[in-house]
Amino acid sequence: MVRISNGRSKTTGDGAARARGPRADRRFRARQRDILRAAAAVFREKGFEAAGMRDIALAAGLSAANLYYYYGSKDELLFSCQDLALDRLLGAARAAGKAAGPVAERLRQVIDVQLRCMLEELEGGAAHLAVDALPAPLRARVVRKRDRYERALRALVREGVRAGEFAPCDPTLVTRAMLGALNWTAQWYRAGGPTPLDALCAGFADYLVRGLRP
Amino acid sequence: MVRISNGRSKTTGDGAARARGPRADRRFRARQRDILRAAAAVFREKGFEAAGMRDIALAAGLSAANLYYYYGSKDELLFSCQDLALDRLLGAARAAGKAAGPVAERLRQVIDVQLRCMLEELEGGAAHLAVDALPAPLRARVVRKRDRYERALRALVREGVRAGEFAPCDPTLVTRAMLGALNWTAQWYRAGGPTPLDALCAGFADYLVRGLRP
Repeated sequence: MVRISNGRSKTTGDGAARARGPRADRRFRARQRDILRAAAAVFREKGFEAAGMRDIALAAGLSAANLYYYYGSKDELLFSCQDLALDRLLGAARAAGKAAGPVAERLRQVIDVQLRCMLEELEGGAAHLAVDALPAPLRARVVRKRDRYERALRALVREGVRAGEFAPCDPTLVTRAMLGALNWTAQWYRAGGPTPLDALCAGFADYLVRGLRP
Repeated sequence: MVRISNGRSKTTGDGAARARGPRADRRFRARQRDILRAAAAVFREKGFEAAGMRDIALAAGLSAANLYYYYGSKDELLFSCQDLALDRLLGAARAAGKAAGPVAERLRQVIDVQLRCMLEELEGGAAHLAVDALPAPLRARVVRKRDRYERALRALVREGVRAGEFAPCDPTLVTRAMLGALNWTAQWYRAGGPTPLDALCAGFADYLVRGLRP
């Protein structure tokens, strides 16, 4: 049941969506997101290796058989968590690249989306970090998309430098410092912990963008 | 052979050092550092789970039996890598806390020590990240020391804010952003890669300290 290996899932491809009709398709996709969120939480709590399809089904309020209707394997779940998150981040970074106005503001926006997507929507830091657990072909697809996101962020930094809004710097290094700070939050942030997510987003955006100023 | 579990190794305690004499003891400790460096490189390359004592002995130019004379287990090696690195970092952070002069300069110095220690001396990012692989009692000791390091860094940030040298901020958040950027380098930095270590240290210090300025 490795539906994903040819780059298109039997249950999520265009043909499948047409067969379901638009309303059922929306429901199906919403269900998928719920499942991915449950899977990310289980991966985070138990670690990818120790997590079982049964745990994920339980967390998502499904029978194991029903879970398999949506996702064929743990690998597919982990891949889909990362792929969904990266689609969100890439979308935000590309939108920021096309928008007008100060680069600093647009960069703050992307920082906000990344933190919320990782920590709130997918509780998914752990999922994000466990890319090494994926089989090589799936890992390669995640890494390619992650690289595209990094390039989109770097292009924003470069634009700010060119416009004189940011200090001259090595955009590659600075982008990686920024991504490191953001990705690392998955190691320590806990929902309901001492740091509210809003404060985290604002504090990180302040600090990470101020470091770019001349 | 869990020499380390009571907090003191049979081969590295004060009694053992006295028994060896000062010159032999220096040689012994230098040998230990070489072994830890080799172990960190193997952990990084193979992952902690897959790495074997045999691989580490080979990388350190020792027989397996000889390696066991220095370190009783893979856990002890991983713990010692992290403990040694954290001693260096704590030393640097405490020295910076006691020194005079601009906080920014002292913070730059700590950033430099952390990056060089992680990436050059121990090639040890992977070792640093694999703390979850340690048995609970050893992990707890690493985490306590890591927390002390974080507090020492945070105290520096707070000192800079109080002195008006840094902008008002949440020192906890900012310190974690900084640590995230630094720790994450272990995920992407490769010796001999496109980014020389000196450029990395300078670029990170510039960016991470500038973000603190008013």
